Amino acid sequence: MKRLRDIGEDALIGKLLEGFPLGDLHTGPGDDCAVVDPGRGRLRLLKTDAIVEGVHFLPEAAASEVGWKAVARVLSDFAAMGGRPEYLMVTVALPAETSVSWAEGLYHGIRRCLEKHGGILAGGETTAVPDGSAAVISVAGEGSVERGELVLRSGGKPGDVLAVTGRLGGSIAGKHLNFTPRLLEGQCLGRMGARAMMDLSDGLAKDLPRLAKASGCGFEVNPEWVPRTPGCSIEGAMGDGEDYELLVALPLRTWEKDLIHWPEGFAELTKIGFLTEAGGELAGGWEHCSGER
Amino acid sequence: MKRLRDIGEDALIGKLLEGFPLGDLHTGPGDDCAVVDPGRGRLRLLKTDAIVEGVHFLPEAAASEVGWKAVARVLSDFAAMGGRPEYLMVTVALPAETSVSWAEGLYHGIRRCLEKHGGILAGGETTAVPDGSAAVISVAGEGSVERGELVLRSGGKPGDVLAVTGRLGGSIAGKHLNFTPRLLEGQCLGRMGARAMMDLSDGLAKDLPRLAKASGCGFEVNPEWVPRTPGCSIEGAMGDGEDYELLVALPLRTWEKDLIHWPEGFAELTKIGFLTEAGGELAGGWEHCSGER
Repeated sequence: MKRLRDIGEDALIGKLLEGFPLGDLHTGPGDDCAVVDPGRGRLRLLKTDAIVEGVHFLPEAAASEVGWKAVARVLSDFAAMGGRPEYLMVTVALPAETSVSWAEGLYHGIRRCLEKHGGILAGGETTAVPDGSAAVISVAGEGSVERGELVLRSGGKPGDVLAVTGRLGGSIAGKHLNFTPRLLEGQCLGRMGARAMMDLSDGLAKDLPRLAKASGCGFEVNPEWVPRTPGCSIEGAMGDGEDYELLVALPLRTWEKDLIHWPEGFAELTKIGFLTEAGGELAGGWEHCSGER
Repeated sequence: MKRLRDIGEDALIGKLLEGFPLGDLHTGPGDDCAVVDPGRGRLRLLKTDAIVEGVHFLPEAAASEVGWKAVARVLSDFAAMGGRPEYLMVTVALPAETSVSWAEGLYHGIRRCLEKHGGILAGGETTAVPDGSAAVISVAGEGSVERGELVLRSGGKPGDVLAVTGRLGGSIAGKHLNFTPRLLEGQCLGRMGARAMMDLSDGLAKDLPRLAKASGCGFEVNPEWVPRTPGCSIEGAMGDGEDYELLVALPLRTWEKDLIHWPEGFAELTKIGFLTEAGGELAGGWEHCSGER
């Protein structure tokens, strides 16, 4: 009998979603967010995500940081479309033995993240999991993006410059719990005409091939150009995962002419390579379902 | 140290959501759905919910029924506002030891429910929980309702007739896994001018006081009038929970004049009592956080 650990997350999701009708969705499952076109005004972005105790955070993590992370991961997906958050909903599944103060800390972190980055908490649910089961915090929500500024994973073209925000690798030392979702940077890149974008959650080595494949391209990356967290190896920067930085494909001309206007105070944007006609390989990356690197 | 098992779900949610800004929400947390007014056209309904192995379904339950239940619970909340489903997102947190065929069965049930009752699957995520942890299926989504047909919990008035759809109690024997969300009935009641409505998930004894409190009313129920699942006691009908029927408050005049038009084929609608100026007490009902009846 085949078990979830035997097949990768992408293959599993592909298998599970097979044959579901897409109705009038502008963009269905497979990108950082689904997109709904209400006919006029801003496009709506839909996203759901969850973090699990023992997988995405340790039991001893500060509750407030866990709440921050749960929300910031969804905001990072809005950022990856060039969008902003609107309404968030949080479902918290905790053992009944959890202390009330831990739950309060969790919501404190959720609130801090929304206050800092925008978005209204429209709903909160709690439910019990059996004692001894891992806590699960699921966040779903709605964002929006200007019609002309939506960036999918699929728009990249051969010759586009590949760039990333911030520095990659070593997130496990703490950044994975308190990272800044790159909303302003994503919106700016959307306005500048980015052709493809995604957020890096499973590591560059795993995520870049996804973007390239969605764009029908190959890629070339110079590992020496990949901006590394201080103390982090090239392998770590490629494969650690949970960076929550943006990976973007920009027309060469935009990179050369317009990046001079990249605002001060934004996370640095670093060229790491190019989209190509075909080919490309990177080692590493985090696999959700098997739980193995 | 106070633990979640020591305080009720309503008290906990109230505590956790305290102080969150409501922004431009039409209706915030506390009703069956949150409501967003996009300024024109239909109002948008937002909802998140989760079911947990060992709490809402047993490990030996058919995967397809588990998927049905996860989605139908959210549809039932749209029904309770007089609305219909639009876009759903599903996050599945399963142990890596889960068989692929179980996950496929789960999605089969999700698909059956959406095909039958409407709604597009806009996103599906999977994540691992540690082996031995309970599976969690979280469903979030967006529905919509005609502007003049939205029914909140808070609009009831003293003298309104209280009625329920279908029959209550004994859901644990199977209905809790394959119930019909009362979407058509809810929409019809919205058009007819229902003043307050909610879906019965924790049992009439626990849910009716919530509706009455939200409406600033008391209530009187004649236990003999409560429609019972065959073989179910009055206590069971009051307290079993997981009925997923609608509880509605209608103006007496509407009940007397218009209910003659209640469509054939709809779930029966039964008067159980009245909203009053104040007071009312019912024994029973399911408490999510303590896991005790």
